[in-house]
Amino acid sequence: MTAPTRSEIDPQRQISLQVVRWQGNVASSATDELVAEEPLEIRASERDAAGHELIESVAVIMRTPGNDEELACGFLFTEGIVTGREEISALREGMDEDGMPSANILEISPAKGVRLIERLRNQGYTRNFAVNSSCGICGKNSVAAACALLSRLPLDGFTVAPDVLYQLPEKLRAEQRVFAHTGGLHAAAIFDRDGRMLGLREDVGRHNAVDKLVGRALLDGMLPLQRRVLLVSGRLSYEIVLKAFAAGIPIIAAVSAPSSLALDLAEAAGITVIGFLRGTNMNVYTHAARILAQG
Amino acid sequence: MTAPTRSEIDPQRQISLQVVRWQGNVASSATDELVAEEPLEIRASERDAAGHELIESVAVIMRTPGNDEELACGFLFTEGIVTGREEISALREGMDEDGMPSANILEISPAKGVRLIERLRNQGYTRNFAVNSSCGICGKNSVAAACALLSRLPLDGFTVAPDVLYQLPEKLRAEQRVFAHTGGLHAAAIFDRDGRMLGLREDVGRHNAVDKLVGRALLDGMLPLQRRVLLVSGRLSYEIVLKAFAAGIPIIAAVSAPSSLALDLAEAAGITVIGFLRGTNMNVYTHAARILAQG
Repeated sequence: MTAPTRSEIDPQRQISLQVVRWQGNVASSATDELVAEEPLEIRASERDAAGHELIESVAVIMRTPGNDEELACGFLFTEGIVTGREEISALREGMDEDGMPSANILEISPAKGVRLIERLRNQGYTRNFAVNSSCGICGKNSVAAACALLSRLPLDGFTVAPDVLYQLPEKLRAEQRVFAHTGGLHAAAIFDRDGRMLGLREDVGRHNAVDKLVGRALLDGMLPLQRRVLLVSGRLSYEIVLKAFAAGIPIIAAVSAPSSLALDLAEAAGITVIGFLRGTNMNVYTHAARILAQG
Repeated sequence: MTAPTRSEIDPQRQISLQVVRWQGNVASSATDELVAEEPLEIRASERDAAGHELIESVAVIMRTPGNDEELACGFLFTEGIVTGREEISALREGMDEDGMPSANILEISPAKGVRLIERLRNQGYTRNFAVNSSCGICGKNSVAAACALLSRLPLDGFTVAPDVLYQLPEKLRAEQRVFAHTGGLHAAAIFDRDGRMLGLREDVGRHNAVDKLVGRALLDGMLPLQRRVLLVSGRLSYEIVLKAFAAGIPIIAAVSAPSSLALDLAEAAGITVIGFLRGTNMNVYTHAARILAQG
């Protein structure tokens, strides 16, 4: 790395999508852009003493497509599995379950004499990633196809007014202020449809804050969290939508952007996702019917 | 969760630490506060048919201490391992390797008839987490003790001037601007000691951006990345320090706060950590001797 090397994330791969943009109590259709987020499956491919090809799944990493060979090599190196370039002989696209080459599967073959699969096994990798690859639920390669199998949260007439939603970030910040000066904490909070805060949790890990809220509800026998709104302080990841879905939460709002994979899952799961909830503006990305101005 | 429940993160558990605060070319000693980040090990404990107690490690989660029972229950629920409160009979502190109860180990016993360990095994949990618990390197319970065993990066006289560091965030933003309007991307970049950008990578996952950089260096045969500076766009996590250490990078700068675990590791690993690099100010948290104003 002696000369500048550029990011290969292609601006053309940004995803344009239609959202419902609320400004005050007025909703209109608008276009928003998101960067793509897709699962990359890393596989090890090598031949045994008898010349048979062995292929094992090493890891599934949710990533922004681009520079995938670098990502796979960097992952194997920083995890202590390969020690340098000379241990890798080839990198190529792998085949999906229909036998088609997939840009989301990368196969790594080790150099002669390097027993990559044995190393991975010794380190606890190459467990059966089929159970938690791709969509995180059923292991299908296509998130959309996988999520189509989900039993959606019902559209049961539960709605929340924009004016209620606009107040939530300030309520979260007000409760969070005690810890705010350290600058390092994510927050998540649960509200009812009138905007009353039912619980707030903070953590260095965004998903931990949500797990703490869900765990509280479980300990109190309050699951599923129907007719509740989850607010998260930063951006909205796929993992958070997955956790909210498990807990039965129908509406998730975030102060920043959702990821594209978060929206794929929310669309399929019947969850309303709100992003860029700031002041009296917000974007509604999925299942916008749950947001209704009071007349 | 019918009444407000409060976060149990105790402000008293914030960590005060001495930092070197640079303002322009002037360094002074200052106190900074960080929120604690520590590993929570979740264990399943149950009796087999013969009445023998089985204990298995389920997961190690890096978290802000507080509401740990909620975190463990929420994790088990959102991962689909337990279905409700009635499947859990007891939650208690576990014993560390010296036989002492530890606030960083939580043991969960299932209700009668619930075969928790079997469920966990079927889902691919309860692999040997001893190899990657706590510090992520050697599995010791105390990060500090574990990291004391590391071979540090050498203090070999490599220094960088504050004026060079102050320019880095703007250089990163300038390169990132093409993608900035989606609002969802983290960035990481490698610079030399004169502030020349050698590589920039972006991803929805902060650690992925670093893995991409390290992977590029590996493919180019440029590892270890001695005499280089890594800049990350947001906060600095433990995982990033671990990856930088693997790649031999001596200086890491972040625009926001480092986590306390990130600093524990950086201190032990001999890595200089800079936080809140903004305008012509920054905090140097560890190994401040590598920052030197040019006279």
